[in-house]
Amino acid sequence: MLELDDVLAARERVAETSRETPLSYSYTFSEMTGAEVHLKQEMLQRTGSFKIRGATNRIATLSAAQRAAGVVTASAGNHAQGVALAATRMGVDATVVMPKYAPTSKIEATRNYGATVELHGLDYDEAAARAREIERESGRFYLPAFDDWAVMAGQGTIGLEIVDALPSVETVVVSLGGGGLVSGVATALEGIAPDVRVVAVQAEGAASAAQSLEAGEPIELDSVDTIADGIATRSVGEKTFRVIRERVDEVVTVSDAEIATAVVTLLERGKTLTEGAGAAPLAALLAERFSWQEDEVVVPVLSGGNIDLNLLSTVIVRGLIETGRYLRLRTVLPDRPGALEHFVEIVTETEANIFAIQHDRTSRDVSMEDAEIEVDLETRGPDHVDELVSALEAGGYDIELLT
Amino acid sequence: MLELDDVLAARERVAETSRETPLSYSYTFSEMTGAEVHLKQEMLQRTGSFKIRGATNRIATLSAAQRAAGVVTASAGNHAQGVALAATRMGVDATVVMPKYAPTSKIEATRNYGATVELHGLDYDEAAARAREIERESGRFYLPAFDDWAVMAGQGTIGLEIVDALPSVETVVVSLGGGGLVSGVATALEGIAPDVRVVAVQAEGAASAAQSLEAGEPIELDSVDTIADGIATRSVGEKTFRVIRERVDEVVTVSDAEIATAVVTLLERGKTLTEGAGAAPLAALLAERFSWQEDEVVVPVLSGGNIDLNLLSTVIVRGLIETGRYLRLRTVLPDRPGALEHFVEIVTETEANIFAIQHDRTSRDVSMEDAEIEVDLETRGPDHVDELVSALEAGGYDIELLT
Repeated sequence: MLELDDVLAARERVAETSRETPLSYSYTFSEMTGAEVHLKQEMLQRTGSFKIRGATNRIATLSAAQRAAGVVTASAGNHAQGVALAATRMGVDATVVMPKYAPTSKIEATRNYGATVELHGLDYDEAAARAREIERESGRFYLPAFDDWAVMAGQGTIGLEIVDALPSVETVVVSLGGGGLVSGVATALEGIAPDVRVVAVQAEGAASAAQSLEAGEPIELDSVDTIADGIATRSVGEKTFRVIRERVDEVVTVSDAEIATAVVTLLERGKTLTEGAGAAPLAALLAERFSWQEDEVVVPVLSGGNIDLNLLSTVIVRGLIETGRYLRLRTVLPDRPGALEHFVEIVTETEANIFAIQHDRTSRDVSMEDAEIEVDLETRGPDHVDELVSALEAGGYDIELLT
Repeated sequence: MLELDDVLAARERVAETSRETPLSYSYTFSEMTGAEVHLKQEMLQRTGSFKIRGATNRIATLSAAQRAAGVVTASAGNHAQGVALAATRMGVDATVVMPKYAPTSKIEATRNYGATVELHGLDYDEAAARAREIERESGRFYLPAFDDWAVMAGQGTIGLEIVDALPSVETVVVSLGGGGLVSGVATALEGIAPDVRVVAVQAEGAASAAQSLEAGEPIELDSVDTIADGIATRSVGEKTFRVIRERVDEVVTVSDAEIATAVVTLLERGKTLTEGAGAAPLAALLAERFSWQEDEVVVPVLSGGNIDLNLLSTVIVRGLIETGRYLRLRTVLPDRPGALEHFVEIVTETEANIFAIQHDRTSRDVSMEDAEIEVDLETRGPDHVDELVSALEAGGYDIELLT
């Protein structure tokens, strides 16, 4: 079992490659929630996520012979980058197997941090199988992404930093995929600040931990579906499951829509970029997935900021739609002169801005005489959306809202 | 003329509504440039930009009668928000005239900060004319955006904070639109740290200051064209021009492509959101628009982060194209079975990812037998783009690169 001493021992090792990230009071989110919110800005960690902590501790505790043989791992994302930089800084050779269609930015970053990248397979499982093959063939040490005591202990150093910087902390909110981060943090907190509550947050589309807790053993999901690729894990680990069951106070889930809203709010209000998994703890807070007292000191851990910029554009639109500031609708115009003008007139009167109109006379769903249009609009919020839709319906249009 | 004492006197007043923003050493940008780069993170200022400083100082120096009558101003952006929150916090009534098509997010923010917003006119000039009308009719004080000694003095407090936090500073880089920010900062620095160099950065498409310096008087441009709306100003002010001429060491320009690259680099590497005007100083550094010594202590002022998220998506794509990670090309396929497959095969062999293909058989530019396609691709950088284009040309395709 993982113990506080493991995390304490990890701290000095982790400092070799990682920085202590800022913990910042947020006026914005405190005002929005009534809690006293401090953000642990781990997306400012080297490599853009917490993963370098666990990788460093794992490598630092290898034998000299193991270090000489090098390490191998598989990852499509943050673990790849964390292992790459940790290994390079510690003078250890690293090979990282990444799925062929991993985002280019992440492949390049992993290479730039000094690892040899091998692209193999269509998904994580195929990449992992290849990494195991390399382990067997070359004698490299396989560096697990989460289900390993030394990795968990490294991630747990975040918990120590939070309590050091903010002894009054009452609740820490941490995202949960494989469970390495939350296991480490919960262990650290139980040891040095046992009254602190630990809330773990999963994506609805990858909520293996909740099911596992119910079943009493790790349950593997058939598939996962979430924009938060950092926690899109089919199963918690065997070891992490034991720690979570014993030390995590609550496990909650958030939807992709809630995650997208949190990413967008952090960008707009906090001027801070997070990836989906990094924003999930704040999403749980904003969506009230757990309860808190007035002025309770709550620390969401923003665990990473490595969101592919192409994905970011998608997430932004999703977040804007969720907050009523972007609207996609479909309707049918009578195919006669002036029909579009009439439609646009109503939109203009309600002060919405049109971004794009797609006009399709060949759609099969409408009669030959009519034309279907899809319209993208900028709106001011949910009330404005309601007002606009009512005005259009009063003008004789059937409105279908798209997402 | 503006003097150091004005800025020193502003400091305490400004502290009533504004925060001292962080100045953070950047490992990433130091490594990229060879300078010792510290970022003044003014985008973390209340309202998301420096404008609240000048507005606060201006309001604080009004007479009791003027404060009772309230203030009025015109702005499509940061000045609107700065005036709104400064006035609200100081118990002064504010009316802000914004052009009708100002971004919804900025209109809403200005309202949320407590100002009465009047939407008027199609551009800033029409909104400003309306604000002057309100000034005459209602007796409200017109709060200028930049060409005012008290406003400049307020912005100059950024210079004091930089020297306090980092006495070793050698060069400060500041964006320049109307000139309020750089005038204040240059005056503060000349007074307390006269050896510090001040570099002002304009957008190429709104470079009135350089022309004005040559002409010896403020020159008004006929039009401006830049993605950096915060510095898209047709002319520097009369007063700011005098300060700039006397106290700014260098005035340089950056292109929109360079600004977009800086915004994207700050997002990806710094996990930090800036608007175009806020990223312009870093753009000038990355594009080497001025020179520096090895390890020179350089502070780009990231003056704001209020970029409309719809615009952000555009800027991101622009930045990715500039850095060779997004490619749009047009070519013609022979209109026969298997033609597209052959094209895709070559793309796949070079390991580029296809985002979108638009296929148009009705284009007038190609013969009836052929089909034009436009393709959006993810690439790994300039070398990868060259490799891909060469492979396609070797495969018999004429490639036209789009931006």
